[in-house]
Amino acid sequence: MPTEAPATEALVFDLYGTLFDVQSVFSEVEAAFPGHGAAVTQLWRMKQLEYTWLRTLMHRFVSFETLTADALAYALDAFGLGPAPDGLASAYDRLEPFAETEAALAALAAYKLVVLSNGSSAGLEAVLTRAGLRSRFDAVLSVEACGAYKPDPRAYALIEHKLGLAPERVVFVSSNGFDIAGAKSFGLRVARIDRGSGASADFASPAGIYRAVRGRPERFGYAPDWVVGSLAPLARAI
Amino acid sequence: MPTEAPATEALVFDLYGTLFDVQSVFSEVEAAFPGHGAAVTQLWRMKQLEYTWLRTLMHRFVSFETLTADALAYALDAFGLGPAPDGLASAYDRLEPFAETEAALAALAAYKLVVLSNGSSAGLEAVLTRAGLRSRFDAVLSVEACGAYKPDPRAYALIEHKLGLAPERVVFVSSNGFDIAGAKSFGLRVARIDRGSGASADFASPAGIYRAVRGRPERFGYAPDWVVGSLAPLARAI
Repeated sequence: MPTEAPATEALVFDLYGTLFDVQSVFSEVEAAFPGHGAAVTQLWRMKQLEYTWLRTLMHRFVSFETLTADALAYALDAFGLGPAPDGLASAYDRLEPFAETEAALAALAAYKLVVLSNGSSAGLEAVLTRAGLRSRFDAVLSVEACGAYKPDPRAYALIEHKLGLAPERVVFVSSNGFDIAGAKSFGLRVARIDRGSGASADFASPAGIYRAVRGRPERFGYAPDWVVGSLAPLARAI
Repeated sequence: MPTEAPATEALVFDLYGTLFDVQSVFSEVEAAFPGHGAAVTQLWRMKQLEYTWLRTLMHRFVSFETLTADALAYALDAFGLGPAPDGLASAYDRLEPFAETEAALAALAAYKLVVLSNGSSAGLEAVLTRAGLRSRFDAVLSVEACGAYKPDPRAYALIEHKLGLAPERVVFVSSNGFDIAGAKSFGLRVARIDRGSGASADFASPAGIYRAVRGRPERFGYAPDWVVGSLAPLARAI
């Protein structure tokens, strides 16, 4: 007799780019630096992720707020722009959820719902509360508890260490290629939210550059178990 | 009395982008994919470095050849191009040194000269021998000996572990921002080769995109001890 597949008890979500749209910092960046909003938004995000990886590799963890501000400073300097005005670096606390996020979470209420994110605890509480989504989640886990950013295995281990959820009872949900590979390599089952890898990836626009650099599945040999086009079909898929 | 500065015994060089020009794969890429050489060359290099970082974070080390081929496949796929023709992925074994590399090494012959690179031992021997530069170096160290890519501290520790050279007797030389920060964070003195951070970084051309993403000093608080515009003034600077 075939072994029965383990029942899924919890869905664990990445936040930036999965539940919330990192592109929604654009309006604040554009207001501060007219005409440069698109390019700065993309380079900021690219460097923010690089800094999570490089600081973890160097064993030089700092808060997500600090490295987000550092990445913004890098991006502005690269384009010859002045220093960031007060408050711009915290735009990641004011991200907008994707249009389908709230309804998709409601449809998944039979599961334990968890966030596991690179954000700080304070930043995650802020962005979720502001969007009226905090009460949808049973737990919000920040990698600051282990001092290592994703895809370091210590980040994914927080799910079991903090919540007692064994990997085989969890489905991890992310749109980020490095995060999908990291969770899968760690031993979780993974649903990939494919936000536009079908759209043209080219070097002709800032958004096209971001899609070219980060929008496609990474070539590590750790493919997701499910692929869906947004959070909406998740309840039916898993 | 002030403490005497330790005498520098060895210079340890990064290879890709420091001694050899990663842009020199362009002609092979352009020949294989006419009109796409510039964009593929830049995205290939960007993903190659990301893959060194992410695989080290995931504890999934593979050879530099494998991840270089994976990064090329990613880049070609992102731009909707076909698979790489045989041999293209090994173009990194056929890089050209910078114009000043040979003369600069000759001027530094009083020091022990060492390479410490992400490349495999076989790849490093190939690229150095092909350029007629192998005999300039007392030792060629590959991170494959520790199973971790730079800026993981284990990579820089190879200098002492393999050669018995204490950090304070070494000057590390690199043009790569992440490598400069990693070496400095590890405890080495570092000379930065500034190859064009003065040039315009913008999103208007593939080379401008690469400079914007990777061409500038990283914001980690680990500044180099020296900055020179090429390898040529190094002998006078240190």
